[in-house]
Amino acid sequence: MELKRIERGNTGNVVIGIDPGFSGAIVVLKNGVPTHCEDMPVIDDGKRKELNGNKVREILLKHYPSHVFLEKAQAMPGQGISGTGRYLTSYGIIRGILIGLGISYTLVSPITWRKKIMVDMPKEKGASIIRAQQLFPNLELTRKKDHGKAEAVLIALYGLKYVLR
Amino acid sequence: MELKRIERGNTGNVVIGIDPGFSGAIVVLKNGVPTHCEDMPVIDDGKRKELNGNKVREILLKHYPSHVFLEKAQAMPGQGISGTGRYLTSYGIIRGILIGLGISYTLVSPITWRKKIMVDMPKEKGASIIRAQQLFPNLELTRKKDHGKAEAVLIALYGLKYVLR
Repeated sequence: MELKRIERGNTGNVVIGIDPGFSGAIVVLKNGVPTHCEDMPVIDDGKRKELNGNKVREILLKHYPSHVFLEKAQAMPGQGISGTGRYLTSYGIIRGILIGLGISYTLVSPITWRKKIMVDMPKEKGASIIRAQQLFPNLELTRKKDHGKAEAVLIALYGLKYVLR
Repeated sequence: MELKRIERGNTGNVVIGIDPGFSGAIVVLKNGVPTHCEDMPVIDDGKRKELNGNKVREILLKHYPSHVFLEKAQAMPGQGISGTGRYLTSYGIIRGILIGLGISYTLVSPITWRKKIMVDMPKEKGASIIRAQQLFPNLELTRKKDHGKAEAVLIALYGLKYVLR
């Protein structure tokens, strides 16, 4: 893996932000600029969703980041045990894929990145999209479900500015 | 990864059984014979346990199995949400490591392997150790906490006999 990284010439300029969960997203930042973003790959058979781990692996291998920032998942009080269980399992799968690929990563709590990035923003869910649009004017975030992409890019930005520097 | 597998000369004769969870275990079967077993690697800071994912990766890379049989985890009704959450996260991490390393795997429910392997055995927890001792006389399973190893070897055996054949 180390060899591959050197071959590809990544010298710490590619980081990835991940908002886990079935409505989450994966965003690639190259030199601080978003170059790729996509919704969390999910296998949906109509009845239930499952994370498409092979696709996550493929994305990570393709962009081979020097570091990944993953939002720390926690059991939500409101959700049932079954939904929480599937959420935490898929969160674990993402962590495991990073471990398996030998990619270094940092888990970031929502409260931590929000405090630094969401300067004076309201607390509503839509605020992440508004903030991401302010910071990255070229990023297309028009659908309501782009919330995941907005959070992923903000998490990556947080990591770049406050963890790696 | 494919290349590595060919280099090492694994031609489908190495399978691994994993009983997930912090008291679980990883057992390697080579040509149907247990050649290595160890307790689930865990980082324990005294207050709480966390799966040692890097160690799991190392074990898998060392023995490079053609297939892994992992006991399917489910939320246990008795446990609290926090314990269940940590259990399912670490179960997900193991699955993710397999995905990251490109190792094929099968999830096996406890009821499925027990039906085939635990022939006329009582339902108590200790029964797995007794059954594993019957089937693998050379496997040392003397401590009460060898329950994880016993289950892991029986899961691997189930996979070898009923999934791969």
